[in-house]
Amino acid sequence: MAKSIAGPEIERLIQLLAKLPGLGPRSARRAALHLVKRREQLLGPLAGAMAEANESVRTCSNCGNVDTRDPCTICADPGRDRSTLIVVEDVSDLWALERAKALNAAYHVLGGVLSPLEGIGPEELNIARLVERVAEGGIAEIVIAVNATVEGQTTAHYLMDQLEGFDIKITRLAHGVPVGGELDYLDEGTLSAAMRSRTKF
Amino acid sequence: MAKSIAGPEIERLIQLLAKLPGLGPRSARRAALHLVKRREQLLGPLAGAMAEANESVRTCSNCGNVDTRDPCTICADPGRDRSTLIVVEDVSDLWALERAKALNAAYHVLGGVLSPLEGIGPEELNIARLVERVAEGGIAEIVIAVNATVEGQTTAHYLMDQLEGFDIKITRLAHGVPVGGELDYLDEGTLSAAMRSRTKF
Ligand SMILES: [Zn+2]
Ligand SMILES: [Zn+2]
Repeated sequence: MAKSIAGPEIERLIQLLAKLPGLGPRSARRAALHLVKRREQLLGPLAGAMAEANESVRTCSNCGNVDTRDPCTICADPGRDRSTLIVVEDVSDLWALERAKALNAAYHVLGGVLSPLEGIGPEELNIARLVERVAEGGIAEIVIAVNATVEGQTTAHYLMDQLEGFDIKITRLAHGVPVGGELDYLDEGTLSAAMRSRTKF
Repeated sequence: MAKSIAGPEIERLIQLLAKLPGLGPRSARRAALHLVKRREQLLGPLAGAMAEANESVRTCSNCGNVDTRDPCTICADPGRDRSTLIVVEDVSDLWALERAKALNAAYHVLGGVLSPLEGIGPEELNIARLVERVAEGGIAEIVIAVNATVEGQTTAHYLMDQLEGFDIKITRLAHGVPVGGELDYLDEGTLSAAMRSRTKF
């Protein structure tokens, strides 16, 4: 859109919306127009919700989760099994596991994976606090639920080294065929792993 | 996402983001997380831009365009050929034609199309003001650039009836606009060509 069509406020809104994942320049324009045409129902409330989130969001000092309180809702939940700690790369993984109701346990969010190429070493990740939590005691099992990527696995092995000497069980997510997935579309590594871990009907 | 994972502020942010075109519930969660992880670079500025747009956006009392000033940037532009008026359904169509640099003319935004089924009659559209502008004089040509849909064409014919008796040329965009297609989705070359080949009604 030419700079001169609408006011600079709208232009700036479009530019910022285009930085959201899933919105390109064209859909950002559509979203901006959708907003300015629905000021009372949407633009105003969304501006308010963003200001409020901006005001209240913080990183949990215990686990690295993102929430509007610290300790976060999960860390503060007395109904959680705190003897099991699920280690994830990102808050989005925590949300995904929670949606799946995978395990009623506690979490630890690393905030990324080791990546020498991108200059991300152990100090850039939330690892020291993980070791600290384990040292504080009460944890029986750590599920390393990082992504099945090269960096994820490198990070998993680094964590196992760091946690050596503690009397805890360290586990990882099973490899296998996704529920509802078609064999035809799966890569050979997944299929081999699923076959190796085959279970009795 | 279960209500209890993050604070209500984040939940509300997700719900509002999901109302944007192009964002479903899943991508709204991704967008919300993207925002709360980038508070200083993105969430804060976007909250501010939305508040500012919400504060400053208005509908041009002359042409129906959306802008942060009234009369809008286009109506106030002395470099525009005001003897030609391009009538569009929606501001998004105006933006699309401007991006295509289709014609350096003035606009008139109807705010929709006639649709008896949805209870949209002439009074619901910005038509009276269009007739008024024509009656004020100085307009030699009206390009009816409505969508090539049934409602769009019905609206075009209604407008021609309303403008009968005025000594003006009424044209429409050339065929080349796909039948059933919406201007907003067309590439700039097609829009420019369609404008160049506009024909007499
Ligand atoms: Zn926490
Ligand atoms: Zn105007």
